[in-house]
Amino acid sequence: MSSIDEKLPESIDLTHHLSAFAKARPLSPLKGLQKYWGKPGIISLAGGLPSPDVFPFSSVGADILLPNAFPSQTEPSKAPLSWLWNLFSSGKPKTVPIEIPRHASTPGQLDLATVLQYSMASGQPKLLDFARELTGKVFRPGYSDWTVLAHVGNTDGWMKAVLTLCNPGEGVLTSTWTYPSALACMLPYNIKAVPVDMDGQGMRADALREVLANWDAEARGMPRRVVLGQNPTGATMALGRKKEIYDVCVEFDVIIVEDDPYYFLQEGPYHPPSHPARNERKGELDLQAYIDHLAPSYLRIDYEGRVIRLDTFSKTIAPGCRMGWFTCNPKFGERLERQAETSTQAPCGFSQALIISLVEQWGFEGFLRWTQGLQTQYTVRRDFIIDCLADEFDLRVGVVANSGVDCFTGCDVYTAYPKVKSTRIFEEKKLFNDQELLSFVPPTSGMFVWLKLNLEQHPQYGSKSAKELEWDLWVELAEAGVLFGPGQMFAATATVEDEEPAGHFRVSFSNAEFNTMKKAISIFARVIVKFFRA
Amino acid sequence: MSSIDEKLPESIDLTHHLSAFAKARPLSPLKGLQKYWGKPGIISLAGGLPSPDVFPFSSVGADILLPNAFPSQTEPSKAPLSWLWNLFSSGKPKTVPIEIPRHASTPGQLDLATVLQYSMASGQPKLLDFARELTGKVFRPGYSDWTVLAHVGNTDGWMKAVLTLCNPGEGVLTSTWTYPSALACMLPYNIKAVPVDMDGQGMRADALREVLANWDAEARGMPRRVVLGQNPTGATMALGRKKEIYDVCVEFDVIIVEDDPYYFLQEGPYHPPSHPARNERKGELDLQAYIDHLAPSYLRIDYEGRVIRLDTFSKTIAPGCRMGWFTCNPKFGERLERQAETSTQAPCGFSQALIISLVEQWGFEGFLRWTQGLQTQYTVRRDFIIDCLADEFDLRVGVVANSGVDCFTGCDVYTAYPKVKSTRIFEEKKLFNDQELLSFVPPTSGMFVWLKLNLEQHPQYGSKSAKELEWDLWVELAEAGVLFGPGQMFAATATVEDEEPAGHFRVSFSNAEFNTMKKAISIFARVIVKFFRA
Repeated sequence: MSSIDEKLPESIDLTHHLSAFAKARPLSPLKGLQKYWGKPGIISLAGGLPSPDVFPFSSVGADILLPNAFPSQTEPSKAPLSWLWNLFSSGKPKTVPIEIPRHASTPGQLDLATVLQYSMASGQPKLLDFARELTGKVFRPGYSDWTVLAHVGNTDGWMKAVLTLCNPGEGVLTSTWTYPSALACMLPYNIKAVPVDMDGQGMRADALREVLANWDAEARGMPRRVVLGQNPTGATMALGRKKEIYDVCVEFDVIIVEDDPYYFLQEGPYHPPSHPARNERKGELDLQAYIDHLAPSYLRIDYEGRVIRLDTFSKTIAPGCRMGWFTCNPKFGERLERQAETSTQAPCGFSQALIISLVEQWGFEGFLRWTQGLQTQYTVRRDFIIDCLADEFDLRVGVVANSGVDCFTGCDVYTAYPKVKSTRIFEEKKLFNDQELLSFVPPTSGMFVWLKLNLEQHPQYGSKSAKELEWDLWVELAEAGVLFGPGQMFAATATVEDEEPAGHFRVSFSNAEFNTMKKAISIFARVIVKFFRA
Repeated sequence: MSSIDEKLPESIDLTHHLSAFAKARPLSPLKGLQKYWGKPGIISLAGGLPSPDVFPFSSVGADILLPNAFPSQTEPSKAPLSWLWNLFSSGKPKTVPIEIPRHASTPGQLDLATVLQYSMASGQPKLLDFARELTGKVFRPGYSDWTVLAHVGNTDGWMKAVLTLCNPGEGVLTSTWTYPSALACMLPYNIKAVPVDMDGQGMRADALREVLANWDAEARGMPRRVVLGQNPTGATMALGRKKEIYDVCVEFDVIIVEDDPYYFLQEGPYHPPSHPARNERKGELDLQAYIDHLAPSYLRIDYEGRVIRLDTFSKTIAPGCRMGWFTCNPKFGERLERQAETSTQAPCGFSQALIISLVEQWGFEGFLRWTQGLQTQYTVRRDFIIDCLADEFDLRVGVVANSGVDCFTGCDVYTAYPKVKSTRIFEEKKLFNDQELLSFVPPTSGMFVWLKLNLEQHPQYGSKSAKELEWDLWVELAEAGVLFGPGQMFAATATVEDEEPAGHFRVSFSNAEFNTMKKAISIFARVIVKFFRA
């Protein structure tokens, strides 16, 4: 896997992929002035910069957790409810202070006079240093002249990428189920999703090839991109599949935008509480072992500069940072920077300052130790919600609920039947014991369980569509006090939504308290059993 | 001026102004779910919200200056160099701490669990409360159902407004000289500036009427908007002119986007050091007197909901906040909010939290006391740079350098001649004493002096265009170690730039140290005199 490093190529020229929007975007107005800009000793009265002496903030600071605040591995001996909140229940968690002064007192020190001033839209140099180090060491792009620049979160990054690569009327290849906001941002520009079938790893390379080979250029314009948000199904795509998809993209000259906010939340396979792996005490991983165990990014195999990767601090630090970065070839990078200059400008200075100070305090290794702790937290939560489902339903593993290739193919599928122990169900056991209610694959990354609702088995199926029944169930569940994400929100197109014989719910395990999750799954079990009897 | 309050109308329906982009933007994906969203007691596992317990920030805080850190009026007895930095030279300035905890300890308290989480794109309720109070009390819109929502700075706000109001191929009415980034953001969408002539107050209402009456709809599409950035010339537009322009907009059904970042930096008229007004000791203004002395916003006369106003914290707090707000009719507001949801989302949580805490600490009156202090700071700086010009040039007031109506018409114009006291000039006095070098009107708001270079008087004028000569002078000045903003950057169109017989420089007085400003103007005087001798 490392031989690629020895003969790193430069990225090839992909400027023909730039959209009309990107091409019409003017060069930086500073272009002719750059020779003099920032020249030592030069006096600039050119910019409209307020005096930093009238910024009302004399210093900004924070108390931050230590990188090892959370255990790097799950601790089998402790029940989630007891050990997880350990940190907080035992009084104040250990923190260290960080502080950013108005003016630096040592050379190179970050200060408010700089970060709260107008600055390069690409981001503060120290932020880019961090992004470069992380990208270089963790994602290890397959070519040498890649560049990084800031954006204000992946939603913004995605929109900027769309407007850099797509002309109105063109199509974007997405997996059948994808992130709704990604679709919503393209619609005003008449750029539409073209769904590609999935299996248990996400988008299928053979399905992608088929769509591209049969592309109706007149109807859809030139395809310019593949979207790879794995958001709703929680699947992890292995390196082999990514290589296959990348090869198809090379063959058909397609750009990949890798929207991968959950990269550091790779929980790995789920094991039931009784499974030995669940109770194994794992040792601390060293840094390289931790990096190697993460499924590689598309950047790793990108020898042509064909990938725009979007990273964000939303899942590793907090969504309110509104900050992340692009990694891409320099041609695309220059266009993305010009776009930022005339819209968002640089990310918020407070955010840049606090994140830079945080990673300086933690160090690069500390940051990765922090993400290990996060991964453990979300693994415990993932395990907990699946355990709750096992408590409420009769789960049978390996039984595929639907025939045909779908987003569960190739995985251990858990099919849920009414629990026999339930009195009510028990009484009517004959009727319901074999009723397949839903199926799911325990997610290996991200924050969600993607439930497939077996609506073909519903008494009203036929007179009502799966989409209608899904909504009926959603409303009944909401009336009972629980909100899941309705699956139809994540359909790439109306056709996907209409033709789908099953319904879906996306269930988040990221945020609710453990007792609340337990209660929600219990209410859901009651509601869905009742629903299937209707 | 206040009778309008007694019969506040609702805004009229202006939805026909929405661009194709804005119309095609989907409704919020949460629309169908809103009935249940945030319902008390409901359990939501729908969103992808990280747990706030894994945010590494346990608390965020700052030390902030007091609202009265700077004097509310200039102090004639003190020279700028001595009194201005008083605050900082006399040890540490007085500050108060603000702090935002992870979890609120009292109901309604701001906390990081909320502000660093995903949140409404329109902004935190407390931020909107402040924006609403300021807009209601200071700008006092002429209709009742106006709305406010956050954006991430006026550059972003302007781009969102353009994409909400303009179709590709349409024209936007701007003053002849305007802000380059505003033009750059429209170009990719083939939306072009249509220049309208200015006088000493900015855009002229009669010129606007003429352009609209002779509008070539086929060539330019429907006009949809007027831009009113007063940026480069530093003029203040009085209420009367705004009313005239507003009436023309009503007549021709045009929307006004008021991009007014310098609202609170209204320095008022310049007086030479010897003028009695300069040495008058002024009393503290009460709040209402201060508000009343500020030139009103277009919102004040907007009885139809025809104005989208952009406000920003960039000039009142710091540019790094990347935060401001729209004030507009609710129909436009809803479209702008959808656009934010699929691009920037909410402004940065750190910024929202720190600004909210700051204005809570200061109070609304404190915020306006702070802006008074700022206004004073910039007034001292404005006075200082004009004084420097008076030191370096022989200034004659009231002599108009060029004939015809231009951006100085109606103002006291200062024309600059070589200073006789200069030895070199003195020797060649006959040749240069009557050489008009440049002219300017001391700005009454903002951060810039707009210099008109009298290039028709240059020996090479004719063989070289004003644009070429402007650039030559710019380079000579840069080579001598001083950067001004080249005027051609601010031309609304290439035609404005090419047809203009004069050159221009935009000179900022906002940021450089006083000694540095003095040095820069001295270098400039030497360079321009030499340049006119060439």
